[in-house]
Formats: sequence, structure tokens, C-alpha cells
Amino acid sequence: MRVKLTVAYDGTAYCGWQIQPNGITIEEVLNRELSALFKEDIKVSGGSRTDSGVHALGNVAVFDTSSKMPAEKIALAVNQSLPDDIRVVKSEEVASDYHPRYVKCTKTYEYRILNTKINNPMKRLYAYHYHYDLDIEKMNRAAKYLEGEHDFTSFASIHSQVNSFTRTIYECSVSRKEDEVIITVSGDGFLYNMVRIIAGTLIQVGSGLKDPDDIPRILSALDREQAGPTAPPQGLTLISRVEEYL
Amino acid sequence: MRVKLTVAYDGTAYCGWQIQPNGITIEEVLNRELSALFKEDIKVSGGSRTDSGVHALGNVAVFDTSSKMPAEKIALAVNQSLPDDIRVVKSEEVASDYHPRYVKCTKTYEYRILNTKINNPMKRLYAYHYHYDLDIEKMNRAAKYLEGEHDFTSFASIHSQVNSFTRTIYECSVSRKEDEVIITVSGDGFLYNMVRIIAGTLIQVGSGLKDPDDIPRILSALDREQAGPTAPPQGLTLISRVEEYL
Repeated sequence: MRVKLTVAYDGTAYCGWQIQPNGITIEEVLNRELSALFKEDIKVSGGSRTDSGVHALGNVAVFDTSSKMPAEKIALAVNQSLPDDIRVVKSEEVASDYHPRYVKCTKTYEYRILNTKINNPMKRLYAYHYHYDLDIEKMNRAAKYLEGEHDFTSFASIHSQVNSFTRTIYECSVSRKEDEVIITVSGDGFLYNMVRIIAGTLIQVGSGLKDPDDIPRILSALDREQAGPTAPPQGLTLISRVEEYL
Repeated sequence: MRVKLTVAYDGTAYCGWQIQPNGITIEEVLNRELSALFKEDIKVSGGSRTDSGVHALGNVAVFDTSSKMPAEKIALAVNQSLPDDIRVVKSEEVASDYHPRYVKCTKTYEYRILNTKINNPMKRLYAYHYHYDLDIEKMNRAAKYLEGEHDFTSFASIHSQVNSFTRTIYECSVSRKEDEVIITVSGDGFLYNMVRIIAGTLIQVGSGLKDPDDIPRILSALDREQAGPTAPPQGLTLISRVEEYL
């Protein structure tokens, strides 16, 4: 059977999702513990390849197994041996041709900024500390320009390897919640570093280094140099992937 | 001059506040970095001796120095070399006879319980994961019995070394905030492990193992065995110490 896992993790200790030679990754740990559980070679396939240090509450992984364990029990079983910074939140059987990367879905990310004079040690791993004042109204005006279908070349790492830089952002908004500023972005897909470059650019707008009305020009330039810096990974969390057909 | 520091820390990596032979403590790190900064032997004296793994947003330390650095600049200066899980939030000059342990103050603690079926990796270091249902109304009824002046022998570690077990709790309340249950306790002082034993007891009430009306009997028994278990340290944070006279 094919099994879909919904996976949450604290990305602090990991070199991102995807297996790579230079450090431990989420994919690698899932493969190891699922293989040990089922006593067969399990290779998961991920929904979103989050970067080093980025967190997730709702990433997705699928794998095939010959096990007869009821799919919905797998979450509980594998959580027994997973390290406590990775949890399988849900496990379910899916069609044998289901793959999370080829299903249309709405992905939602949150970028958290702790906007205080001095960093909070209890939030330092899950928010980017930025101590200058941020103008939320300006950030929201800039964010609105990013909504809709655009070529996001200016908001993608120059190391992106994709055929098309066109993506659709359904919602991009900025809110203040106590001492945090939270950027919420949902869309049909995101380029390499795209949410972090959006965050870095909106922070420049909020602190007055860029104007909200600069965004249309930055988008149409199709030039990474025109957007702001890539904001640090610890502020970013993949909140959810909501699929249209399943 | 005598300097008062307000100190925040993530207690995860520390063996509590007080210097001890078997591991690194907050007090030790503050002494080391302040001594390096002022090039003299600095020994801080703490307000509350938090346990291993317990966090703080507003603990207090005082020390004497011959430095001429303006007191309010010391926070920024020492934060440059402190590890990022400890931050001095504020520094100020105080009277030479001021000591945080001998000033009447209201101490407020929060105990956070993540009340979900599966733990959240992004909250695991700052909340106790408890997956059974909790009845908040019952927990609040029990909490009210703890308010006021009582002999808290039943709610103190048997290793407490104090002359009197009498303390006054000004407020003890329980609230639900999204997927967390938060116990807030404020009082004039707390015995060793007292807030964690209160939390462990209220969790038993919330899950039906004890009745709210058991609390008066537990208090009057003056017997640690009658109260619930000591809840784990990661849920506990010293929020603030508000002094009456300064």
C-alpha cells in the first residue's frame, strides 16, 4: 500500500528535508525509522523540500510498504522511535498513484519576526529577531502587489532549477500579534528561497528602506538583485498543504 | 555601584540558576561574562533559584562593580558575549543595600501544558505535552483553594530546607489558549518545586484522578505524598518579579 504521512518538525538541528551528503536531514531520519519499523527498505518522497533550519507543522511524505499495519496506526508506531523534534501527526492510506508533488494544493507558510529591542531566548529558534520598528500598514500594501499570478524570478534564489518561474500567490498578508510580526503567504507553489526573499523584502519595506510601490517594478525586473535579502531560516514554518483532489 | 539585571533564559541547556558542580548554570555564565566584561571578579546574586530545565523571562540578578560604565548600558554590552539562550533584558543601578531576595515582591509563574494528541516539535521545549482531556473548569475550582495564606508542606519537595512552609498565593488560575492549557500562579514566594507540584496536582484534577474538593484535605495533611506528582520542568517559566518597594 501507499501511505501518506503528515509531518511536523523543528528544523533547527537539520540540514533541511532532502537527503544530502553533508548533514542529517528529515527525509533521512524518516527513511531510517520507517525501515526499522517495517524491516524493509523504505524511501519516502516529500511534498515540500524545506531548507536547512526551516520548520514545518504540515509537510507531507509518501512511501510504499508491504506491511499489513493499519495505515492510521503508523503515526503512533513510528513516533515511538523518531527523535522528539520530528513527529508524524497523521498517517493514512492513499491511492497507489498519489504523489504530493503532483497534486494541486494550497501551501501556506508563516514567517515570524520577533520585533522587540532585545531577543527573547524562548523564541529565538522559531522567529527572526528584528529590532527596528516595522510599519505593518506599509508591509501589507507591499504584500498585496505579490498576490496573483506572476513571474517570481526576482524573488527566487539564483540557484533555482525550474522550467517556469510563474507561480500564483493566493494570499500575502502581514499582522502583528503581541510582540511578533507575522507574514502569512499561501500559494500554489514556491520557488527556492521565495518565501524568505519575500520576507526580507517586506522587512525592508516595513523599515522604510523600500517603498510599497517599489514592488511592481521589482517583480517586472525579473532580477534577484532588485528584491531584498533572504531572511534567516528560523523564522519560516510550512504551516499546511491543503490538497484540492484526493 | 550595585547593578540589578533583569534576565531572560531558555533553561533547556542549563542545570538551573545556582552554581553547582555537575553542570553549567545561568549564574555561572553570568559571572563568567560579566567578569570578562569588567575585568574584575563579578559574583551575581540571584532573585529566584530556578530548577534545571526551567525558563525565565524576568529573573533578577544583582552584583557590585567598580566599573564606571553607565548601568543602563550594561545589558547591551554583556549581551554581546552571552550565549543566545540567555539575554539581559534590562540593567539599572540600585541602592547599595538592595537585594532581590530580601525585597517584598510578587512572583508570577506560568506552567504551559500542550494538550494535544501528538506533541508539537516546535513547542516541546517550552510546554509539557499531556494528551488526555483536561477539564479546565475543575482545574480552576481546585486552583481557587490554593489562593491565600497556607502552609504548603504538601506542595513542597521533601528536600526543601526552609524555616517556614507558609506562603501566600495571590492568584492561581487556569485558562485554555488555542491548544495549550496555561496555569498562572502568583505569590509572595514559592517553595522548592512548589509550582511544579501544583501543576502536577491540577493536571490530576483536570483528568479526573482527583476532585477539586480534595485540595483542602491535601493542604491540611501537610504531607507531600497527598499531592500530585512534580510536573516536568520544561513547562515552567518565571514570568516576572514585581517589587513593592524599590
